[in-house]
Amino acid sequence: MPNHPTPSTFDADAARRGSEARGRFRAGAPAAHTSGLADDLVQANLVVLPRDWAADFLLFCQRNPRPCPVLAVSDAGSPALPTLAGDLDLRTDLPRYRVWRDGELVEECADVRALWRDDLVSFAIGCSFSFEWAMRAEGIPIRHVDLGRNVPMYRTNVATQEAGPFGGPMVMSMRPMTAAHAIRAVQITSRFPAVHGAPVHLGDPAQVGIADLSAPDYGDAVPVEAGEIPVFWACGVTPQAALKRARPPLCITHAPGAMLITDLLNHQLASH
Amino acid sequence: MPNHPTPSTFDADAARRGSEARGRFRAGAPAAHTSGLADDLVQANLVVLPRDWAADFLLFCQRNPRPCPVLAVSDAGSPALPTLAGDLDLRTDLPRYRVWRDGELVEECADVRALWRDDLVSFAIGCSFSFEWAMRAEGIPIRHVDLGRNVPMYRTNVATQEAGPFGGPMVMSMRPMTAAHAIRAVQITSRFPAVHGAPVHLGDPAQVGIADLSAPDYGDAVPVEAGEIPVFWACGVTPQAALKRARPPLCITHAPGAMLITDLLNHQLASH
Repeated sequence: MPNHPTPSTFDADAARRGSEARGRFRAGAPAAHTSGLADDLVQANLVVLPRDWAADFLLFCQRNPRPCPVLAVSDAGSPALPTLAGDLDLRTDLPRYRVWRDGELVEECADVRALWRDDLVSFAIGCSFSFEWAMRAEGIPIRHVDLGRNVPMYRTNVATQEAGPFGGPMVMSMRPMTAAHAIRAVQITSRFPAVHGAPVHLGDPAQVGIADLSAPDYGDAVPVEAGEIPVFWACGVTPQAALKRARPPLCITHAPGAMLITDLLNHQLASH
Repeated sequence: MPNHPTPSTFDADAARRGSEARGRFRAGAPAAHTSGLADDLVQANLVVLPRDWAADFLLFCQRNPRPCPVLAVSDAGSPALPTLAGDLDLRTDLPRYRVWRDGELVEECADVRALWRDDLVSFAIGCSFSFEWAMRAEGIPIRHVDLGRNVPMYRTNVATQEAGPFGGPMVMSMRPMTAAHAIRAVQITSRFPAVHGAPVHLGDPAQVGIADLSAPDYGDAVPVEAGEIPVFWACGVTPQAALKRARPPLCITHAPGAMLITDLLNHQLASH
């Protein structure tokens, strides 16, 4: 992975704000999601798996870096990711978790200490909030953000590279843009390979097997205005779909939109 | 301009090959064009103007860097551009020249020594050969190259920024590509701001005032296949169109496709 975060890169103010946000959730403050919270800080998808499943999942991520960019992997049993945050406890520091058994959602909760085991391996995976931050910082409007909706996401006919039990279709998120913004968006997001990087498609949705843009498989539809081009990025829902298909006996993830807040600043993930 | 070439950057083998190519033309070897000759070397558009017109033309280029990226400007009267080539004589080293008076083409010739004056200022302007080389080096096919045609170019409804008598529409070149290649092409050509840089448009030609892709204003039409997107770059014909409109009493340019061959390697123009 490019630009592996290391603890020495923490900005003091960012670390203080990250720690405060996590501390509130650790103390039990309720929150539906983390969108808009400390939005200059890197937020991450969380996937926790038994060690027996972790090697194949890491291989799946390695083979599919666009939808599954790994920011950090824990030691087995450890609830810390020291390259992402100084005082992180992965069992308590996210506002909401989902618990999956044999690929089925069984519970949503605010604390997973009761489920923790010393063979659990945690993955932090890059999230589109970071590259949306980068585009918005350069004046590119993001339709679903402006409409207060979730991003539209689609199962496509692009297959991921399989690894053990993990595989399935690549899920893509879509953001409509003018041509000029689409070109600028390629430039901006190319600098952020750790958070999905450049678009994987633009233009005709049918070319990637999407029949109807107004009927996303996940998230909310947004209008594509006259003169706009739909621009598609590899999406962090891809590993969730692969996990559901692989059916591990236990898996813990963040709940949708309720991300892991780190101490890293988004711009620290830029490759150049 | 980014990455101003300096003489110290010449590669010895590139300088030897550049010098040989120019020497052949200086000795009178006939050539219709330089396409495919030493194609890892930077080739440039040439514009020569009386000093009284040069300041406004330089300002026009400064205000329109995408269509008019200046690689080097000579001292008045000098036929040398030492940052581009060691032994260059601009009066003899291109295979063919065009001579314009009051904006009208009056002559095409292989040598302009008889026309030279000590108030002439020469401009070398980046050429799309360099960014096409970069895309082809990464496996992106270029339709007009594969078909042995000139690139299709179009007058658009995008206005240049005026400077003195210079102005008029931006001319764009068009290369059809798959979506994946279009995205990669944005990345590759963004690294070459000195040779037009990233595309300025993609998708619907009507958005930039092009009514019919099969009827280019300059060059040859090429087919856009099913599933391809037309991708548009600012074109080096823009300054030629501006010169024709401005009607300077004397102007010398290269003949179409018969470029100035320099001692610089294309990759030396990469911004990163």
